[in-house]
Amino acid sequence: MKKFHVTFQPAGRRGEIAAGKTIIEASRELGVELESSCGGRRSCGKCRVRIAKGNLAAAGPPPPSEPLSPFQEGEGKFIGAEERAAGDRLACAAQIQGDVAIFVPEESRGGRQVVRKGAAEKSFALKPAVVLHLVSLAAPTFQDPRGDFERLKSVLVQTHNLPATLTIDYHALRRLPAALREGKWQVTVATWMEKEIIAVEPGMAESGVYVLAVDIGTTSVAAYLCHLPSGRLIATETMMNPQVAYGEDVMSRISYGMTHPEGLETLHRSLIEGLNRLLETLTAKCGISSQAILEMAMVGNPAMHHLFLGIRPDYLGLSPFPPAIHQAVNIKARDLGLQIHPGANVHCLPLEAGFVGADTVGVLIAERPHRQQQMALIIDVGTNGELVLGNREKLLATSCATGPALEGAHITFGLRAAPGAIEGIRIDRETWDVSFKVIGRDTWSRDATSPTAKGICGSGIIDGVAELFRTGAIDGRGRFASNLPSPRFRTNGGSPEFVIAWQRETALEKDITITQGDVRNVQLAKAALYTGAKLMMRRLGITRVDKVVLAGAFGSYINPRSALILGMFPDCDLKKVSAVGNAAGDGARIALLNRDRRREAERIAARVEYLELTVEPDFQQEFMDAMYLPHKKDLFPHLGGIMGRDIPSRK
Amino acid sequence: MKKFHVTFQPAGRRGEIAAGKTIIEASRELGVELESSCGGRRSCGKCRVRIAKGNLAAAGPPPPSEPLSPFQEGEGKFIGAEERAAGDRLACAAQIQGDVAIFVPEESRGGRQVVRKGAAEKSFALKPAVVLHLVSLAAPTFQDPRGDFERLKSVLVQTHNLPATLTIDYHALRRLPAALREGKWQVTVATWMEKEIIAVEPGMAESGVYVLAVDIGTTSVAAYLCHLPSGRLIATETMMNPQVAYGEDVMSRISYGMTHPEGLETLHRSLIEGLNRLLETLTAKCGISSQAILEMAMVGNPAMHHLFLGIRPDYLGLSPFPPAIHQAVNIKARDLGLQIHPGANVHCLPLEAGFVGADTVGVLIAERPHRQQQMALIIDVGTNGELVLGNREKLLATSCATGPALEGAHITFGLRAAPGAIEGIRIDRETWDVSFKVIGRDTWSRDATSPTAKGICGSGIIDGVAELFRTGAIDGRGRFASNLPSPRFRTNGGSPEFVIAWQRETALEKDITITQGDVRNVQLAKAALYTGAKLMMRRLGITRVDKVVLAGAFGSYINPRSALILGMFPDCDLKKVSAVGNAAGDGARIALLNRDRRREAERIAARVEYLELTVEPDFQQEFMDAMYLPHKKDLFPHLGGIMGRDIPSRK
Repeated sequence: MKKFHVTFQPAGRRGEIAAGKTIIEASRELGVELESSCGGRRSCGKCRVRIAKGNLAAAGPPPPSEPLSPFQEGEGKFIGAEERAAGDRLACAAQIQGDVAIFVPEESRGGRQVVRKGAAEKSFALKPAVVLHLVSLAAPTFQDPRGDFERLKSVLVQTHNLPATLTIDYHALRRLPAALREGKWQVTVATWMEKEIIAVEPGMAESGVYVLAVDIGTTSVAAYLCHLPSGRLIATETMMNPQVAYGEDVMSRISYGMTHPEGLETLHRSLIEGLNRLLETLTAKCGISSQAILEMAMVGNPAMHHLFLGIRPDYLGLSPFPPAIHQAVNIKARDLGLQIHPGANVHCLPLEAGFVGADTVGVLIAERPHRQQQMALIIDVGTNGELVLGNREKLLATSCATGPALEGAHITFGLRAAPGAIEGIRIDRETWDVSFKVIGRDTWSRDATSPTAKGICGSGIIDGVAELFRTGAIDGRGRFASNLPSPRFRTNGGSPEFVIAWQRETALEKDITITQGDVRNVQLAKAALYTGAKLMMRRLGITRVDKVVLAGAFGSYINPRSALILGMFPDCDLKKVSAVGNAAGDGARIALLNRDRRREAERIAARVEYLELTVEPDFQQEFMDAMYLPHKKDLFPHLGGIMGRDIPSRK
Repeated sequence: MKKFHVTFQPAGRRGEIAAGKTIIEASRELGVELESSCGGRRSCGKCRVRIAKGNLAAAGPPPPSEPLSPFQEGEGKFIGAEERAAGDRLACAAQIQGDVAIFVPEESRGGRQVVRKGAAEKSFALKPAVVLHLVSLAAPTFQDPRGDFERLKSVLVQTHNLPATLTIDYHALRRLPAALREGKWQVTVATWMEKEIIAVEPGMAESGVYVLAVDIGTTSVAAYLCHLPSGRLIATETMMNPQVAYGEDVMSRISYGMTHPEGLETLHRSLIEGLNRLLETLTAKCGISSQAILEMAMVGNPAMHHLFLGIRPDYLGLSPFPPAIHQAVNIKARDLGLQIHPGANVHCLPLEAGFVGADTVGVLIAERPHRQQQMALIIDVGTNGELVLGNREKLLATSCATGPALEGAHITFGLRAAPGAIEGIRIDRETWDVSFKVIGRDTWSRDATSPTAKGICGSGIIDGVAELFRTGAIDGRGRFASNLPSPRFRTNGGSPEFVIAWQRETALEKDITITQGDVRNVQLAKAALYTGAKLMMRRLGITRVDKVVLAGAFGSYINPRSALILGMFPDCDLKKVSAVGNAAGDGARIALLNRDRRREAERIAARVEYLELTVEPDFQQEFMDAMYLPHKKDLFPHLGGIMGRDIPSRK
C-alpha cells in the first residue's frame, strides 16, 4: 500500500500515512489531538484544518500530485469560499493522496481540559477492600515441609483473623515462592475483601500501595489516586474520553458501535488504552509503579459502564432500555487489559435503570439523600443529565438527554472547559458592557492586555444566556429584543446575536458572540432538566423541594443564581442551592475506600425507583412549557429579588 | 541477520533459518520432531542427523561455503570416523552457516507415540462441576425493565434451585445480551460449582458441551475428552511433552528453568502451546469447537503442575522441597492462554509433598486404597516413580528418581513406545532363541518377513532383563555369565551384550542388543522403586502387602511377572499384582465428572503422609541391596515356581 509523508503543525508531529486515510485518521495515528464532535460524520465542522502553503490546490482540476482528495459539497457548509481558497478543509472529509503539511488552528485543537473534576473533601470511615498484612513465617523444614501457600495461609488465619476459605489469585501464586525467599520469609500480603490474596511482596508494608477511583463521563474522565493504608488522596488526573472521536453523545456512540464491524471493540479499546495512558501520566507524576495500584473503582452512566466492560450497549438504546447487569461487577484488571497490578480487582458500582447509572449511584453514596429527612433534588449535569429526587422515605431517579450545550458544545463559540474558555459572564443592564472571566486568568476583565479568550465553555454559556435574560436582551421565549442601543446587538445572516468579546479582546481573529441558536440550545438543555425534575415531583406528589444539589463535572462552576434565572430547576431559595462538584467521582472514591458503602450502593441502587420520562403523560407539553425562561407557567418567587425587575412577559 | 535455506528430509519441511542457529533449533522452528533426551547438552547422542549429499564437508579446513559449523570433539563420542565421513552430525552441536539439506534417520525421529495412556473403564457417579440449564425468560417491558443478568438469575434461583449468590463470569456477561436476544429469551446456561455462570448460548442444551481431563507426564501427555451431560468418553489423544526438548527428566527441566533467562516462561509456554495443538487435533477429529470445552481437570507431578501454571519450580528441587501450593487450584483457562472457552475453569488436582503430586492424588481417587481394608502398594511408574502404601487406616507416599530407563530412554537401543519398538521379549533357556513383540504388529515373531523393529521400549527392556536373569544369562548382581553357548552372547568394546534381534530382523542396519550398561540402568530404576516400597513398609511396621497395583503410562503393558522377577517390588502373590494403566489420568477424568471426588482428593491429599526417602536411615544400604536381582537379602517365595530354578547365588 502506498504511503505519504504527513506533518501536523504546530504540534510538529510527522509520519507515513497510507493513501486514502482521512486527515482525522492520520491525526489519530500520529497522536495529534483534533476536535471532533460528530464522530467524523461531517456534521459538526469542528475538525477544520488548513493545508500549509506550498501544498495549496491550484485553481481548476487537481493535478495528479494533489495531496488531498477533492473538496466535497458537505465541507461547504462549514467552509466559505474565501476560507476554501486559503486551504481550509474538514479533517474528516479530506483524504491523504500525497505528501502534505497540515496546520491545526487553535479552535480545532483538542486541548488538554482543565481539572474540573476535582475531588471534594468528604469525611467517611476508612475501610478499604484492600488490606495489607505484614506476615512473618517460619522457613520450611523436613519436619514442616508444607507448601508456601498453606504456610502463609495458616498464619493469616491464626494471627490475622482471615477466614479459612481464603484463596490466592493466580498471579500472586506465581509470585509467592520468590517473594517469600526474597523477603527471607517476611512479606506483605494484600488481601481483597478478606476473600483472596491478590499480591505478595517483600517490603510493600513500609511504602504502602495505591487504589484508584475513576469517573468515566461521556465527555471527560477523571481519576483519583489514593494511598493505602492512609486513604490519602495523592493525585487527580483528567482526560477527554477518547471515545469522543466516535461520537459526542451516548446515542451516537451506541450507533457507532452498531454500525461499524469492529465498532464495539474500537470504542472499548480506545477507552482502555486512554485509561492506560492516563495511568502512565498519573504514575509518572507521582513516581510510583502502576503495579502498586491494587484496586480500581469505576462509575459511569450505563453506556460508559457497558463500553468500559466491552458489553454491547445496543439494548440500552432500545425501549425498555435494560442494562446487561444492575449489580456491582468485580473483575480482574487483567481481563480488561488495564495496566495496573494484574491481580487487582476492578469494582464497577451498580447500575440503576434506563440511563441512570453507576455515576448516579456514586452521587447517591456521596450525597446520601436516603439518610435525610429533607426532600433533595440532585441534578448531575453532563452530556446526559441525571436527576434524583427523594429522602429517607423514597428515592426516584430519571435521566434526560441534555445534549452537550451545557458543556460548551453545540454552541457557536463553544469550547470545552480548557484554558482560554470564558467561564463566567456579567452584562451591565445600563451600558451593555460585558465583563468575563477566562480560564487560566485570575481576574474578571473586560479588556485584557494580552487577550486569551478563544470561546465559551458550559458555565460561561449558562451565565451568558441568564445575563441576556436578566438584562432583558432576550425575552421569556429566548428571542432577542430589537433596537437595543448598543453595537453588541447585531444580526449575522439575518439572525440576531450578541457580542460577548470583541475581536481585540480575544485570541481569535473575530468577535465571540452568543447567537439566537446558542440560546435555543441552552433552552433545550435546561428544559430537559426542568421537565425531569417536575415530573419526578409530580410522581412523589410534592410541589417544592427542600434543597437542590448541582453535581457534575461542571457542577461546582455553574453559578446557582444563573441556573435559577434560566429555570434549570423549579423555584428554590438560593441559599438552599449548592454546587458539590463531581459527586459521582466522590462516590467512586468513597466506595474505593469503604467496603460498607459498596453494600450501601447495592441496597440503594435496588431501592431507587426509575421514572421513564418519555412515556409520562404530558411530557411533550411540559417540555414545551419549560422551554420558556424561567418557565411558561410555573412561578419563581425567589427570582424576584434577584432579577431586580419583574419577570418578563410570557407571550 | 543473515538467513539460510534449510530443508529437513524425509519430512520435507523447509524454511529460512538465521545463521548461527543449531540444527535442533531449526527443527523446532520448522516443526520437525527430533529426539533429544539431554536438552541439547550433547550428552545423549539421540539427535544424530545426516547431511544430505552434495553438502558434505570436504577434507581439510572447511571452505567459506561450508553449510555447518565445524565438527566438535563432543560429537565424536557418538559419531565414529566412518559415520562422520558419511555426513553425520549431532543436531544440537552443528550450527547453520549456509544452505543445507538435512536427513533425519529413523532413530532420531520424535515419532508419534502410540496411545499408551488409554482410559480405563471406571464406574463412578456422574456429578460434574459444569451443569447445563435450559432457561426461558420473559422479555423486558416498561413494567419489568430489569437487567439481563438479574432477569436470568431470578429464574435460575427460583426454578433451578441455584443460590442467590450466583455470579457471572466476565466473558459470559459480555455474551449475555446478544445470546438472550438471538435465542428469543430461551438460552442454555452453563454453571460451574453452582457458583458462577460461565457460558450462555442459545441451543447449547441440545448438542451438549465438553470437558477435558489432562494427564501431564514428564515424558508424555494424555487428554481425555468427555461429553456433558452424558459423561461419555468421546476421544483420547496423546502427545510427547514438548518440554522434553529442554531436558528429559524433572531435575534437568528445573535446571533449564533456573539457568536460562526466560527459561521458566519457555517451559511454560511450550507446554501450553503443545496443549493448544493437542486441542486442535482433538477437536478437529471430533468435529467440535474448542469453545464448547467448558472445563479442564489436570494432574501431573509437582514440577509439571508448577510448569503448567508457570510457577517457578526451583524450590521443588531444593530440600525440603515445598511446593508453592498443595490445595487444588482453580483458574480461568484464559489466564493460562488455553484455547478453550475463555470462561472455562481449569481444575488442578491437589499436590501432596516432595515429588508426590497431583498425579498421585489422581491415582488415589481412581484406586481408592483409603476405602479398603487390604494393604495396597501402588506403584506409578514414570520418569519419576511415585509410590503409595496404605489402606483405610493410613496412607503413606513417596517418590523416587527412577530415571527414564523404564520408559526406554538411557538404554542403548531405547525407544519411546512408538511403532517399531520391541515391547515384549521371551528367551528360551535351552536354545537362547529370542521371540519378541513389536508395537504395530499383532503377533510375536522371531523373524518377521518385513522387519519393523527399531529399538526397545520400557516394557520391552523390563521383559528383556527379567528374561536374561530368569535364564541365568545374568546373575543376581546383573553381571553377564561368560562362555554361554550362543553367538547372541558377545562383547562390544570389551563390555558384554546380548543380541535380541539380528540385523535382518530389524529395520536398522545393525543388531539390537541389551548391554551390560542397559542392565545396570534397569537395576538402578528397580532398586529405587523397591527401596521406596520397603522403607514405606518399615515405616508402617508391615512385612508384606496384600496387593500390588502397577500404574503409569506404561503400567498396563509391564508384565507383572517380569517386574516381580526383577524385584521391582517386595514379594507378592502374582495373582495379587494387577496393572491398571494410566490411573492418574483416570483420576483426572473422575474428578472432572464428579465434584464429590474433588473434595475427596483434597481430604486425601491432606491426609497422606509423605516419606522423604533420602533422609531415611539405611537408605544407601537398602538401595545397594535392592540393586541385586531380585534382592540381596530379601526372600521372594513367590518366585520359586516362576523361575523354574533356584534363585541364583548372591555373591
